[in-house]
Amino acid sequence: VGLGLIGGSLARDLTEAGWTVRGLVHRESTARQARELGLADVVATDPAILAGCELVVLALPLDRLLAPAPDLLAALPPGAVVTDVGSVKGPVLRVWQPRHRRFVAGHPMAGATDVGVAAARAGLFRGRPWALTPVAGTDEAAIRTVRCLVDTVGAHPLMAGAEDHDRAVALISHLPVLVGAALLQAADGEPEAEVAALARRLASSGFADTTRVGGGNPELGTLMARTNRGALLHGLARYRRSLEDLEAMVREEDWPRLQASLEGSRAVRDRYVGASSPQATGSGNPRS
Amino acid sequence: VGLGLIGGSLARDLTEAGWTVRGLVHRESTARQARELGLADVVATDPAILAGCELVVLALPLDRLLAPAPDLLAALPPGAVVTDVGSVKGPVLRVWQPRHRRFVAGHPMAGATDVGVAAARAGLFRGRPWALTPVAGTDEAAIRTVRCLVDTVGAHPLMAGAEDHDRAVALISHLPVLVGAALLQAADGEPEAEVAALARRLASSGFADTTRVGGGNPELGTLMARTNRGALLHGLARYRRSLEDLEAMVREEDWPRLQASLEGSRAVRDRYVGASSPQATGSGNPRS
Repeated sequence: VGLGLIGGSLARDLTEAGWTVRGLVHRESTARQARELGLADVVATDPAILAGCELVVLALPLDRLLAPAPDLLAALPPGAVVTDVGSVKGPVLRVWQPRHRRFVAGHPMAGATDVGVAAARAGLFRGRPWALTPVAGTDEAAIRTVRCLVDTVGAHPLMAGAEDHDRAVALISHLPVLVGAALLQAADGEPEAEVAALARRLASSGFADTTRVGGGNPELGTLMARTNRGALLHGLARYRRSLEDLEAMVREEDWPRLQASLEGSRAVRDRYVGASSPQATGSGNPRS
Repeated sequence: VGLGLIGGSLARDLTEAGWTVRGLVHRESTARQARELGLADVVATDPAILAGCELVVLALPLDRLLAPAPDLLAALPPGAVVTDVGSVKGPVLRVWQPRHRRFVAGHPMAGATDVGVAAARAGLFRGRPWALTPVAGTDEAAIRTVRCLVDTVGAHPLMAGAEDHDRAVALISHLPVLVGAALLQAADGEPEAEVAALARRLASSGFADTTRVGGGNPELGTLMARTNRGALLHGLARYRRSLEDLEAMVREEDWPRLQASLEGSRAVRDRYVGASSPQATGSGNPRS
């Protein structure tokens, strides 16, 4: 259900793997495009297409996932395993758990800069983590079916509690949005026109990278904050303290402590995303 | 003087353009490597090599640039134009202006993830801004010589006041270091082991990009904060206010205002670094 970047890429990989895939989309124009791209065996805008499906993947935007259309709910085969790809799991479970007894919540950590049906591509999930957050009582066979889906596209299934998942993505996905957004606003708030103009002209890869998600889709950023508010506020409070500590070191000119702190940050980054890229230090010139 | 990423790349481009280039380096091993790579016509560790040079480019790490070796100072031909590539300009001018009458401070906004003599590469500066911050009384012929250097490697010269330059780079280069470092520390400070482990396993490109400069070279980050402390503290104060505003919107659940604010951030990013990369919204799944 949904053939955007995630749904479309999934359909492509599964078709390739020999599965029979039916795509349900909202607009006839999307259906046409998906058919032209050969993303699925059948593509339609009528939910009746779901009849007989053993596994239904809800690859919808989070807001539509959280307020599912009645005709979609009515068309779900009662015995089918249903999963989703939404980036928060608590709110999704609160909506879907009571509505479908074989629901298994999921979240593939894969993406790309393009969106929509034209962005669908083979191998998007290969080697990426795919979180699954079954609740107590989720039937084992349903979990196995979704794991099989994850395995088929080459992703690594990662079992987690929904609450833990949402707190983890608050730190690594949702907090970076606000952190980057605030940096953009701080730069933009420079009162001296000369300095502001210069900052715009000198801004380079360091600024671009740090603000990439912060300057991303505003609807999505808002939706994430809304659906994961508690965890995000916790992360923000801790972030604020970390920043205040760093600021104090600069204010107090405690350079040994600042350097030790930045060494700590580098070590954290190594643990999180592998060895950090060294910067251009040879000339005192950062990759700026 | 110095054949690291910046100095070595510069030497390569200038040699290519037909200039006669002499490279002065610290270590004999670097000299050997530079000779093997053919970066300059002559490479030596003896400052006497500078005799007769018309233009001397100080491509040293910022700390060595700010505390120049006596034998380097003694070897500078008095009539030569001298320029540097350091990332802060006020402190460099305070050291170099009184020491050499034909000094023109400069800062190429170019870099790469690799460092050292082996990282030197052709075309590093092509199309990039290169700030020049001459002071009142800098001789016009010296400025023309440095502009010619900048033009020769295909960079865009940008004339600015040293103080404006330092305030601008505080916003786009130095603030991102602390912003990213604090994010790494906030993630690392997660008290629940389950959540922390999950965050590490789920961290992906969004987190990696936002923290790239924050998880970079600690010595360099400290040196920047030290040499540009005032401008950095100003930027930090404004950043803190922007973040507190965003946090208040989340706390007060003012979603329309949050969305408008994130729309503003996206527009700022477009102005600073060109159109922002769209995120994978199709599935409610950010490029996370």
